[in-house]
Amino acid sequence: VKGNFDVVTLGEAMIRLSPPRPIRLEQATTLDLNVGGSELNVAFNASRLGLSTSWVSKLPKSPLGRRIIRLANEQGVDASHVIWSDEGRAGLYFVEFGITPRTTTVTYDRKRSAMSTLRPGEVDWSFLEGVKLFHVSGITPALSDSCRETTFEAVTEASRHGCKVSLDMNYRSKLWSPKKAEKTLTKLAGLVNLLIASDPSIVWSIGGETEKVLREVKERFNVETVAMLVRQEEVATRGACGAVALSDRIYTSSRFYNLEIFDRLGAGDSFAAGLIFGYLNGDMQMAVEWGAAMAAIKHTVPGDANYVTKEEVEELVKRGELYGIQR
Amino acid sequence: VKGNFDVVTLGEAMIRLSPPRPIRLEQATTLDLNVGGSELNVAFNASRLGLSTSWVSKLPKSPLGRRIIRLANEQGVDASHVIWSDEGRAGLYFVEFGITPRTTTVTYDRKRSAMSTLRPGEVDWSFLEGVKLFHVSGITPALSDSCRETTFEAVTEASRHGCKVSLDMNYRSKLWSPKKAEKTLTKLAGLVNLLIASDPSIVWSIGGETEKVLREVKERFNVETVAMLVRQEEVATRGACGAVALSDRIYTSSRFYNLEIFDRLGAGDSFAAGLIFGYLNGDMQMAVEWGAAMAAIKHTVPGDANYVTKEEVEELVKRGELYGIQR
Amino acid sequence: VKGNFDVVTLGEAMIRLSPPRPIRLEQATTLDLNVGGSELNVAFNASRLGLSTSWVSKLPKSPLGRRIIRLANEQGVDASHVIWSDEGRAGLYFVEFGITPRTTTVTYDRKRSAMSTLRPGEVDWSFLEGVKLFHVSGITPALSDSCRETTFEAVTEASRHGCKVSLDMNYRSKLWSPKKAEKTLTKLAGLVNLLIASDPSIVWSIGGETEKVLREVKERFNVETVAMLVRQEEVATRGACGAVALSDRIYTSSRFYNLEIFDRLGAGDSFAAGLIFGYLNGDMQMAVEWGAAMAAIKHTVPGDANYVTKEEVEELVKRGELYGIQR
Amino acid sequence: VKGNFDVVTLGEAMIRLSPPRPIRLEQATTLDLNVGGSELNVAFNASRLGLSTSWVSKLPKSPLGRRIIRLANEQGVDASHVIWSDEGRAGLYFVEFGITPRTTTVTYDRKRSAMSTLRPGEVDWSFLEGVKLFHVSGITPALSDSCRETTFEAVTEASRHGCKVSLDMNYRSKLWSPKKAEKTLTKLAGLVNLLIASDPSIVWSIGGETEKVLREVKERFNVETVAMLVRQEEVATRGACGAVALSDRIYTSSRFYNLEIFDRLGAGDSFAAGLIFGYLNGDMQMAVEWGAAMAAIKHTVPGDANYVTKEEVEELVKRGELYGIQR
Amino acid sequence: VKGNFDVVTLGEAMIRLSPPRPIRLEQATTLDLNVGGSELNVAFNASRLGLSTSWVSKLPKSPLGRRIIRLANEQGVDASHVIWSDEGRAGLYFVEFGITPRTTTVTYDRKRSAMSTLRPGEVDWSFLEGVKLFHVSGITPALSDSCRETTFEAVTEASRHGCKVSLDMNYRSKLWSPKKAEKTLTKLAGLVNLLIASDPSIVWSIGGETEKVLREVKERFNVETVAMLVRQEEVATRGACGAVALSDRIYTSSRFYNLEIFDRLGAGDSFAAGLIFGYLNGDMQMAVEWGAAMAAIKHTVPGDANYVTKEEVEELVKRGELYGIQR
Amino acid sequence: VKGNFDVVTLGEAMIRLSPPRPIRLEQATTLDLNVGGSELNVAFNASRLGLSTSWVSKLPKSPLGRRIIRLANEQGVDASHVIWSDEGRAGLYFVEFGITPRTTTVTYDRKRSAMSTLRPGEVDWSFLEGVKLFHVSGITPALSDSCRETTFEAVTEASRHGCKVSLDMNYRSKLWSPKKAEKTLTKLAGLVNLLIASDPSIVWSIGGETEKVLREVKERFNVETVAMLVRQEEVATRGACGAVALSDRIYTSSRFYNLEIFDRLGAGDSFAAGLIFGYLNGDMQMAVEWGAAMAAIKHTVPGDANYVTKEEVEELVKRGELYGIQR
Repeated sequence: VKGNFDVVTLGEAMIRLSPPRPIRLEQATTLDLNVGGSELNVAFNASRLGLSTSWVSKLPKSPLGRRIIRLANEQGVDASHVIWSDEGRAGLYFVEFGITPRTTTVTYDRKRSAMSTLRPGEVDWSFLEGVKLFHVSGITPALSDSCRETTFEAVTEASRHGCKVSLDMNYRSKLWSPKKAEKTLTKLAGLVNLLIASDPSIVWSIGGETEKVLREVKERFNVETVAMLVRQEEVATRGACGAVALSDRIYTSSRFYNLEIFDRLGAGDSFAAGLIFGYLNGDMQMAVEWGAAMAAIKHTVPGDANYVTKEEVEELVKRGELYGIQR
Repeated sequence: VKGNFDVVTLGEAMIRLSPPRPIRLEQATTLDLNVGGSELNVAFNASRLGLSTSWVSKLPKSPLGRRIIRLANEQGVDASHVIWSDEGRAGLYFVEFGITPRTTTVTYDRKRSAMSTLRPGEVDWSFLEGVKLFHVSGITPALSDSCRETTFEAVTEASRHGCKVSLDMNYRSKLWSPKKAEKTLTKLAGLVNLLIASDPSIVWSIGGETEKVLREVKERFNVETVAMLVRQEEVATRGACGAVALSDRIYTSSRFYNLEIFDRLGAGDSFAAGLIFGYLNGDMQMAVEWGAAMAAIKHTVPGDANYVTKEEVEELVKRGELYGIQR
Repeated sequence: VKGNFDVVTLGEAMIRLSPPRPIRLEQATTLDLNVGGSELNVAFNASRLGLSTSWVSKLPKSPLGRRIIRLANEQGVDASHVIWSDEGRAGLYFVEFGITPRTTTVTYDRKRSAMSTLRPGEVDWSFLEGVKLFHVSGITPALSDSCRETTFEAVTEASRHGCKVSLDMNYRSKLWSPKKAEKTLTKLAGLVNLLIASDPSIVWSIGGETEKVLREVKERFNVETVAMLVRQEEVATRGACGAVALSDRIYTSSRFYNLEIFDRLGAGDSFAAGLIFGYLNGDMQMAVEWGAAMAAIKHTVPGDANYVTKEEVEELVKRGELYGIQR
Repeated sequence: VKGNFDVVTLGEAMIRLSPPRPIRLEQATTLDLNVGGSELNVAFNASRLGLSTSWVSKLPKSPLGRRIIRLANEQGVDASHVIWSDEGRAGLYFVEFGITPRTTTVTYDRKRSAMSTLRPGEVDWSFLEGVKLFHVSGITPALSDSCRETTFEAVTEASRHGCKVSLDMNYRSKLWSPKKAEKTLTKLAGLVNLLIASDPSIVWSIGGETEKVLREVKERFNVETVAMLVRQEEVATRGACGAVALSDRIYTSSRFYNLEIFDRLGAGDSFAAGLIFGYLNGDMQMAVEWGAAMAAIKHTVPGDANYVTKEEVEELVKRGELYGIQR
Repeated sequence: VKGNFDVVTLGEAMIRLSPPRPIRLEQATTLDLNVGGSELNVAFNASRLGLSTSWVSKLPKSPLGRRIIRLANEQGVDASHVIWSDEGRAGLYFVEFGITPRTTTVTYDRKRSAMSTLRPGEVDWSFLEGVKLFHVSGITPALSDSCRETTFEAVTEASRHGCKVSLDMNYRSKLWSPKKAEKTLTKLAGLVNLLIASDPSIVWSIGGETEKVLREVKERFNVETVAMLVRQEEVATRGACGAVALSDRIYTSSRFYNLEIFDRLGAGDSFAAGLIFGYLNGDMQMAVEWGAAMAAIKHTVPGDANYVTKEEVEELVKRGELYGIQR
Repeated sequence: VKGNFDVVTLGEAMIRLSPPRPIRLEQATTLDLNVGGSELNVAFNASRLGLSTSWVSKLPKSPLGRRIIRLANEQGVDASHVIWSDEGRAGLYFVEFGITPRTTTVTYDRKRSAMSTLRPGEVDWSFLEGVKLFHVSGITPALSDSCRETTFEAVTEASRHGCKVSLDMNYRSKLWSPKKAEKTLTKLAGLVNLLIASDPSIVWSIGGETEKVLREVKERFNVETVAMLVRQEEVATRGACGAVALSDRIYTSSRFYNLEIFDRLGAGDSFAAGLIFGYLNGDMQMAVEWGAAMAAIKHTVPGDANYVTKEEVEELVKRGELYGIQR
């Protein structure tokens, strides 16, 4: 069994089914199939930047389970700690992409997935020895009671083995209420080194100006570093994004990118991967810049995973804008 | 034979063929097939809002005829009064979607369609007894002499059975001249309760500021209620829309919606359906709001028919904008 | 609420997802979406032959639920007795079409569907008054305990209202064991007029020569009429089919059709529809001929539903073979 | 204006629309677009074999007219004698490809096409001077009275300018009755040098064994050369073909080819092109061999036109079968 | 062999392969195939405007070579001077279309193409007698040493036969360095009548305000007429374009068009064709207007070739904007 | 760097481009993109059966290079010994799938690929220590002189490190002549343990009855084990296959499978993988059975790689045929 990864993540990945846009589900005669899941996305994207990564999950022994694992495999994300299960199904989600003023809607069909049956003791966490960072999002503890317990087990084990721990709040209203989320995420926030404050207003009622929010989150949970992806959406296919972070007492912010938006799903996970890349380099300015650039490019790439190259992120960070033609 | 519908409409529906955008017809190797026709669209859309509807037409006994009827059937629009014909073809129209500065062009191939052979006496209009509203557009009388006569027959019968009558001008330059249209539409306008003034400037040379136009139309034809969809097009894929109405002496206007435009064909029919929905509720403010919201969403939905839910129209009317992601 | 249908059926319909053949699920980047379910298929197909039909089921209030209902609607199958539910999901099934020697595999993902929550008392069966025939397959009682109980309720109510009752065994190994099926189907067989003996060998260990099988089934369960679709598969895309029935003491058999097989899913339901069509005409020779011809054509039509015309079935029955070109 | 072509043909070409097989028209959401028409196909195919060709027709000034002309242009078939018309539409035909036992059906929608308005005197036939062969099929005189008259004008002018004349019977039941066809084709047969007897039994009630049919046709109309493509269809996608001819007193027959059939439309026109190629070489054995090989390959090529190379026809004629892999 | 063309061009055309946008090459499972090459595009586009054109090139005898020639053929661009070669491959290029901030990237795979082996003496340039204008771009001399020599041969021969000569700089960084380009293009510029200054800043370090640039280029190389397409790109899918020219002492500029950009490849070649059309009409205002309008429409048409009609260019030039719907 | 693999292979992988069948390259507007190459296929397929594998190759640093590596990655084939190159292109090949009597043709465009520049000394073969088997085909030495030398280097190093060595002749007429192949393959045959005699008649003029051929090959080159896939093709889409081997003095043969053929490319590599799987298990009967079953299923799977599961191969070997439906 392999070890010594830069980044290990824990979470569910699902089959994503979406009609060719802007067709509605009710009209659809074909669906595009992608694979996605927040923590697998983070591992995939970090791997694109050259980090060695492993993804921990539980999948059903079925064609759909094998379809899901392909996304990890093709990017060289280690999947040797994925548990193959006879119980539980493959999680699915349907995405109907809308354009203004029609909403993009996500319909989950993930109940009783194999992943939701994951329980403490099932994963042998000893391989975290030597790993630099363990990452999980607020989706994993929301999947089931046993997943919540396994999340705490994993975070505790990670700390014990000397890993840094990062958490992306990723509040999902279709999985739990703000109240339930508040209880769990508050506890988790106290255990992590790097907190991505994606939904502070819904879960902790911490709103207002960006820097203020970060300061308040940092203080309340006494986290070493907090960060946030800032998005502006003009219409469904146009917007902008940038990133901010607060580490110790230093507040850093990145360039803002003008965006044409094709697929914003997974942009937060792209931000997380870029952020972790800079964070592990010990450079928070780099962290927000790479996080913002990763997220910016993700908006242009179909699917949850970000088929970006390290070189183009580097160039975008350097030049600030890239579009046009290269020939 | 069924009766007691909320809304009955009379008109032609056609097979619509369009290259995947923005491919030109001359380059095309595949065509997308949809079904559409102004009055069928209105019945379909009204049915989405919960009204019971029936559509009267004449179709050829052929695979294309059966393909057309499916659109009515799938939405529960009653088609028991459609006449199946051995004579005449299925009307076709080709749409080439352009983007700025290239025009979207519609090429009709509907001459000698089964519908154009419809003549007075062919439809048994007694089923209009108990129907709330009868709707027709200016396209139907433009199809042929016998269609024009049947339109007058239908409108007269509708009034006789106590139905409200609505008319959408829908001037089509490829079917008749402004002069011919003027003669027929002027006569029809005098017979209706609700007039959708879609082309007052071309047909009646009534132009200028919106409210003034409505007042002038209302007065000249002595119609109870006149209404209009107001559209602004920035470029082919961006614009805005809203709606206005004048009923008795009261002028009402709706919110304006910022739009990303994918398919504007049928937006007028969506407006008509929403307008009628409010009109039958006896609430003209509701009529313009629902008409505008229906039209706004239609711009984002492929095809002539509007696969909208009543709930999302309601929410759009309430909140004013919807886009983003729901998950 | 409407009544007086020729045929009423009860069962689940699902979203069917399949990679464009012969791509494997593991390789797929798009899936074709169809809607199917044995008893909806029967109602759809019977409606193609001119019978008036209604389908009873339970569907979730969701885009997928609305996608499913479209199949009933577009064919004019009455769906006014379908129950819309807040609980339960839309059943799904994945089909990977193989060619020789690779198997076509069906993977169900239908657990905890809305339909599986249907329970006795939920449907008001009084509308069965005046209905000629009630049809159900062995899939419905296999879905859940409450579905099994509802099936018995429905069959009892149907008999009480004077409907003929037909049952298609349709054994599904992924839903229940032969032993469990044996117990339920034996009880049901005793309550029906027309029994389609699709899997007598698996469920009742009644095998051997076709006529002998029919006689044994008829005697053991004392059914008025038993029938069977006989299929031969040379390779995945070539085969033959015909039909046999035993009514009173008379054994009838149909022509055999040479087949090119594109999609054999739903062929049994096409057989059932043709059989019922002839059965309601009181002519068992017609029943097997129309059953066989319906099934034969179904093998050539994509999807579960059979987009056949009554005229072409009639011509196939008359001429025995149809292929070639008509121009 | 160019002249001195090897082959000139006269006829209509249409837009052909067909659902991706084996989808039925009633289910279709997309259609494949091809261009075809018997005499254009012959010119196209003859051009693939290296002959210089010109096609005479009448097309509407419209995107569809321009789409049709592309097929002639791309193969270098001269279209300078095509008349561009303000009147008349582009002919259409819909093809639904069936597999056994479902029939492939062709639905014409070609009435009042631009071509059908072609009348004597419209084409300046003086460019036939120096042309080797003029070809027309029985479809052209069936299109309209004026087309029939123009066909006789063209055939007469061709003879006057010293061209050989060939005629393919190509009886189309949807255009005229056998009786009407008999009258016109009998007259035409007396004017030609090379007669392709595609439908002798329907039109002239000349049936039976192949050689006998050719002898009877030859004698009755006193034609120099008669020829025929012989097809056997096992199922819709499997069959065989070969060719026979009778010239002076010599009866020749070609190899027979085992076929996998994808698209049999236009196979007769491929036969005609190969036959003419050999005929112009003065070698009737070559004529039937190239005719049969051209037809055989056509069954494997999508669309009406035969994207064959002269080299592969030559090799097929030489080796008798070609399939396998070349790498 | 034909002669007396309005325009003759010399250059390579390639197979262009691009994933359906905005899919990345790394994710692609299908590629769209188009044909393009600067000088073929110019001939194609000029032919759309009614000019008679011929394209000189060298192609491999292969299916890909035949695929390429179809683009010339279908538009009636004479290809009788194309040399068919046993040596060399078909040039390919891969285009990955990005949206902001992701760059559109062109990856050439054209080394050792058949065209790159073209050498002086291979083409018989005597057919230039009577031709009005010979056009070449800076790509052709960049392909190989022998292509550079053949370019000079062609330009010299063209002048000798009394043709006007036009040159589009078309600097391609992936073919040669600015320094190498400078040497060759400077020499060529001295030999031409009409110079399209597409990249003056990279090659000659002539930058700044548009009119100034044109004046400087004109003076330095003593060219009769210089022109330029001016493009502004707001984001990848939105921008504007217009054109300017300097002839003798007169500076002319066109309207500016607001653009929605689908495919900007080949817009420069569309500009060249419109410019040449006006230039040959002896009207430089017409030249810049038609050049700008041609380029504007090209941004909306998929592929390198511009499927425009002369009528719509005329109307765009007259009215200044065209979008909306015509029906 | 990882080691201790069951199987290591050396060879080129390419982008494979093919029109959707049976469209011809000349007609194509889209191409399907797959990745394939004999030795990568063997590693991929062996990995599907549970063996640990590594693939050695040389790829260009480009999107196409990254597209190719994905096939290795997604199946967990180790690619850490692949050399990334600045010189050389990605090899391409075009496949046009024919149906009888049209040939399937493969057009290579692989000259000057990165792989063809691989030279001795570039790969550090020390990782072969502990590897069970090294596999190469006759394609690799045919790519270039330096590739031939590297093949010999690899085979020698493999033997030195105690690996078994297997060779698949895989003669490719478009890469070298039989004479050149004979010289190299004869030398290689003397160095291997397991020889797949795919083309003994072309290269060594050893023909005739299967068993006799194996005996002659075995004796002439003194190889421990020789094996062969036996294929019969009835028409392009129907055939049969089985396998034979001769080890020591024992001749073994497998079941024969009736096949529907969709994509026969890579069937030989599937055979090789199954054969090696059994060979490494020390059981030649298993080797031919698994080789034949792997090849049989491959004919039904699109692409070069065989998306098979170990379980279904096992079941096919056990049951002899699998088709039908599992539900």
